[in-house]
Amino acid sequence: MKFVIDTLGGDKGSLEIIAGIKLFHQEFPEVELIAVGKVDELSELSNIAKIVEANDVMPMDAGVLEAMRMKNSSMSVAIDTLIKEKADGIISSGSTGAFLSLATLKIKKIPGVIRPALITSFPTIIDGKNVVLLDVGASVENTKEELVQFAKMGALYDKAVFGVQEPQIYLASNGSEEHKGSNVGKEAYQLLKNEKNFVGNIEARDVLKGHADVVVFDGYSGNIFLKGSEGMAKMMSQLMKDVFKKNIITKIGYLFAKSGFNDLRNKMDYKKVGGALLIGVNAVVIKAHGNSDCDSFYSAMKVGYHLMEKKVVDEIKEGFTLHE
Amino acid sequence: MKFVIDTLGGDKGSLEIIAGIKLFHQEFPEVELIAVGKVDELSELSNIAKIVEANDVMPMDAGVLEAMRMKNSSMSVAIDTLIKEKADGIISSGSTGAFLSLATLKIKKIPGVIRPALITSFPTIIDGKNVVLLDVGASVENTKEELVQFAKMGALYDKAVFGVQEPQIYLASNGSEEHKGSNVGKEAYQLLKNEKNFVGNIEARDVLKGHADVVVFDGYSGNIFLKGSEGMAKMMSQLMKDVFKKNIITKIGYLFAKSGFNDLRNKMDYKKVGGALLIGVNAVVIKAHGNSDCDSFYSAMKVGYHLMEKKVVDEIKEGFTLHE
Repeated sequence: MKFVIDTLGGDKGSLEIIAGIKLFHQEFPEVELIAVGKVDELSELSNIAKIVEANDVMPMDAGVLEAMRMKNSSMSVAIDTLIKEKADGIISSGSTGAFLSLATLKIKKIPGVIRPALITSFPTIIDGKNVVLLDVGASVENTKEELVQFAKMGALYDKAVFGVQEPQIYLASNGSEEHKGSNVGKEAYQLLKNEKNFVGNIEARDVLKGHADVVVFDGYSGNIFLKGSEGMAKMMSQLMKDVFKKNIITKIGYLFAKSGFNDLRNKMDYKKVGGALLIGVNAVVIKAHGNSDCDSFYSAMKVGYHLMEKKVVDEIKEGFTLHE
Repeated sequence: MKFVIDTLGGDKGSLEIIAGIKLFHQEFPEVELIAVGKVDELSELSNIAKIVEANDVMPMDAGVLEAMRMKNSSMSVAIDTLIKEKADGIISSGSTGAFLSLATLKIKKIPGVIRPALITSFPTIIDGKNVVLLDVGASVENTKEELVQFAKMGALYDKAVFGVQEPQIYLASNGSEEHKGSNVGKEAYQLLKNEKNFVGNIEARDVLKGHADVVVFDGYSGNIFLKGSEGMAKMMSQLMKDVFKKNIITKIGYLFAKSGFNDLRNKMDYKKVGGALLIGVNAVVIKAHGNSDCDSFYSAMKVGYHLMEKKVVDEIKEGFTLHE
């Protein structure tokens, strides 16, 4: 298994990324690592990774044209390296727009896929049950045909990653009735309604209840959902901490409840999820959070590892060959 | 102050609504109440409210045409009563689509307003600071001009309700940079960027951080944000409860931390918010949650009371007369 890492472009600098790579290597020494970035910074990885030099940093707000022009950026070089080395996966915490555009253009879409999507999973209220969400931000607008393909890719992902054989698929909407939804959502509903495993519309407030396996969003509202939910989870975690700080009695309470709260923090720590997959291209392309620290970059690398291990790209290819 | 209540059409039946009305009357005996619905059910309110008979229930999935045809529905009769009695406000937990359409058509928009919006506020991580959100679901799609007006109505609301003199206004987006956003969002940005108090784009994950006073969404993504955040808050509350149930030690912890958690639950209980205002029409039109129980209907009525008291409708009228 070969994994290419873009070590530049994250908000917190490459030292955090490098520390994350070391953690990953300790757990998965069998994975061949290729680190792309500044050679002097990467020298300490020379025993555990192949080093490829690239000194330019892709700016966070790079547009597609600028991204394409920056051929010596670590991001571009990393993608070229993936292709040249026939690697299985790549990860970057740099500019989302630039990374997704370059990856789609250079690594290319899986035949039959109209448009790749960012896919991730969330824990639900049911212990151990995850819900798969896509698109959470690769596109801004989508066509009905794209939404239909997202449903299909989501189901293949859920099967490959979580082993769910008959994933219950929903379309995110502003109401659960058939006539609700955005204009494109309503059109997609008509195409989806005769598909096996498609259940119907789901309101945003029901997504985490655990009965939905896959929820399809257009990229814009999926991004709003993902980040809005993360923001709320973060606020609730903060408020919980404050609760225990209220007075000496509640502080004592914390000592007793600590173990339980650590479990909860682990479950709800979105830093630990750390990355989303660009699904629909010919490699495991992981977008790590822009503000990844050591832990979250390590977690995002683990997400990538599991997706390579589960051969999610092959599953999508096969699914699209059989049914398109 | 005159307040009309549609007592039919909620998911939990009119008994919960009636109990909510009683609670409200205990706290605000000076408000003149007019209850619309089935006379036999409402007889117990005869000492505290004027009773208006209407026996038909607006179905939850009623379209605009059906809503207009059902002239004897409690919802239609309640709106007609508001107009006839020159009441200040109206509340319903019935079909959102039907209620917003009928209210807009019959009560009419404030001169200058292109399109009314559903507006509500959320607590933020900063204690005592609320963020005002609109549109959270009156529309499915909006034009750039509508988004610009939402910014203005949001600011007037924030001023009237929370006394914020110079509200910091943001546009919800999939990134904080100027070039990010939905297609209509990008257009609206160009119109808003020279407006006083407009700060820029805000990502969904930053909405609850407390620096934004007003966040403008198109109705579809605002609905996804609102309900997604509610769903996450509900899940976190549930998981917190589970944490304390883990073992005898954590149960003891709960006894100590209880007082703090009650504060948190009060802050985050969206049932207690209960209702959103249809802003931009000539009355305080409150949409209560479809599944309102006694407590949440009472809370929604209180929201309505405060909006009437703060004369939010007059403020919007004045703002649009002066500046349009």
